[in-house]
Amino acid sequence: MTDPGRPSILRAARKAFAREPYDAVTLRGVAADAGVSAALIVKHFGSKEALFERVADFSEAAQLLLAAPNERLGEHAVRTLVEYRRENDQDLLVRVVFAAGKGDERAQIREHFRDQVTRAFAARLTGPDAELRAGLITAQLLGLGALLAIDKTGPVAAATPEVVAGLYAPAIQDLIH
Amino acid sequence: MTDPGRPSILRAARKAFAREPYDAVTLRGVAADAGVSAALIVKHFGSKEALFERVADFSEAAQLLLAAPNERLGEHAVRTLVEYRRENDQDLLVRVVFAAGKGDERAQIREHFRDQVTRAFAARLTGPDAELRAGLITAQLLGLGALLAIDKTGPVAAATPEVVAGLYAPAIQDLIH
Repeated sequence: MTDPGRPSILRAARKAFAREPYDAVTLRGVAADAGVSAALIVKHFGSKEALFERVADFSEAAQLLLAAPNERLGEHAVRTLVEYRRENDQDLLVRVVFAAGKGDERAQIREHFRDQVTRAFAARLTGPDAELRAGLITAQLLGLGALLAIDKTGPVAAATPEVVAGLYAPAIQDLIH
Repeated sequence: MTDPGRPSILRAARKAFAREPYDAVTLRGVAADAGVSAALIVKHFGSKEALFERVADFSEAAQLLLAAPNERLGEHAVRTLVEYRRENDQDLLVRVVFAAGKGDERAQIREHFRDQVTRAFAARLTGPDAELRAGLITAQLLGLGALLAIDKTGPVAAATPEVVAGLYAPAIQDLIH
């Protein structure tokens, strides 16, 4: 993320596509919200459709969160989530919450989330209730992301990733087997 | 909740106040979204200001979630959250996530959440990191609410409150001491 415009564009695009119907979102509107020109969006992402695909895609998030062996996957996922937010002032997953509700594009964001994140965790689990446990793992990660999004100065935001992982990851780890 | 209009009005009001600036929200718009008349909103809630106060208020949610002794508070909170969603097709807490971002009214919703929910959990805890642990407990509850909001037909939504509590509540209970 060397170009400071890129994260601002993505942030504005995530907000726009979560709140407005697809047809109502314009590159001009996203650009205004991001404080850049529409031309810069085109340069970075191509078309509005390509920008939406980027917003609806959780494959990079899943790859980052799952980049550890099962024995320490809970700790890795929590630390990755907390560190990513600090470094990018964005959450890897929480935009899917804004895609609750009606509309084909929102449904597509939710489906991608399920296919790319929840099912990727499920594929790492064995035994009974693997899908259910994977759902609850993503719930825990969504909750941590949501809390950090709404309380940017509270005790969770102020704690180190290690401390947060120490208190929060064992619960996730307990669901991984 | 004997009048079926009430939950629809609250749902529409929560959406409106989370997505629009206060000044842009109209009783007429909320009424249209809820499929009722603006007069019915006035009858139930009084003014737009009173409706906003209701949306920004989490005291009832906190009272429901915390109505158990500490020894079984984790299980109680999880079951209450799941059962409330089933009975009302609404979440007790997750609307605060939509209040992320700019605007005085959103900040007010987040402050109420912190004062009425997170601090109420913190007041039940003793020992080091009580505020931090309370924040992580609310994160877990927010995450479960968020997951149920975005995946209404998945394995978590399909499981009984007892099964969800059996897998999800121990993590919360571990933070309560």
